[in-house]
Amino acid sequence: MTDHLAPSTSRSLSPLDQDRHFLGLAVEQARLGWAEGGVPIGAALVHDGQVLALGRNRRVQMNSAIRHGETDCIERAGRLPASVYRRSVLYTTLSPCYMCAGTALLYEIPRIVIGENRSFQASEELLRSHGVQLDVLDDPDCIALMQRMLAERPELWLEDIGEHA
Amino acid sequence: MTDHLAPSTSRSLSPLDQDRHFLGLAVEQARLGWAEGGVPIGAALVHDGQVLALGRNRRVQMNSAIRHGETDCIERAGRLPASVYRRSVLYTTLSPCYMCAGTALLYEIPRIVIGENRSFQASEELLRSHGVQLDVLDDPDCIALMQRMLAERPELWLEDIGEHA
Repeated sequence: MTDHLAPSTSRSLSPLDQDRHFLGLAVEQARLGWAEGGVPIGAALVHDGQVLALGRNRRVQMNSAIRHGETDCIERAGRLPASVYRRSVLYTTLSPCYMCAGTALLYEIPRIVIGENRSFQASEELLRSHGVQLDVLDDPDCIALMQRMLAERPELWLEDIGEHA
Repeated sequence: MTDHLAPSTSRSLSPLDQDRHFLGLAVEQARLGWAEGGVPIGAALVHDGQVLALGRNRRVQMNSAIRHGETDCIERAGRLPASVYRRSVLYTTLSPCYMCAGTALLYEIPRIVIGENRSFQASEELLRSHGVQLDVLDDPDCIALMQRMLAERPELWLEDIGEHA
């Protein structure tokens, strides 16, 4: 996927509108995951304005303990040179858990755009202490996705963050 | 896999010998991974003396950016209740990277037995700061596996830890 935001489009958007565009792709992934019966969290990995991969939490869909939105996205991007990760931005609908934060630290992804951190927040201090730039958009769609999940599938959410159901 | 260490055997081994036994299973996984052309790092997840899963780095084998020894092991253990992770020990032939450390923090695994940390060490301070008990066995077999890799496949190792080759 290399044509999600052509250079001409990219130039015409403000930085915030570019972030909203890519976060919107992550939101689409989250909605797709919810429609599949899964945890509604999505992510996008973007390098120089080009989408390298999209991903979504696949705990339910793949019976997975490690496929969160961010890790699924990074997995789907394939094996990349260190230089690519280090010039990429990770978009995620929800503030990263420690696993996903650790994955961003491993690959030295320098910036993470976070849809919202009201429903969950664990790793932001750690990420900032390592110099990762975090931008929280406080996006109503991301908040609504999590609120619906917390109301309708609380046990699945607790499982996903390693808490007692 | 529930019969790797029957209770009677478990009782007859000292705690250190039990750790060496389970680390030995992780070493077997690391050797298998090397024989497959992969990164020679293995892991075992053990709950109350029973092996829940074994795993090994599968970057090469599965073309994966997230299947390190520890994450592969946790993935293969399946979706577990929080209470199981919180009474488990993670054995790994090499000191965890941030991704694998973050995964242990997500699931609140209380103890990690580390084969060696001479070849690589990144996350031990973070893990200890969260109360994770770390025991480093400084195992010659684990060190030898990494030394051979660093000599023969340095570019693969650098890729695996997100460094420039």
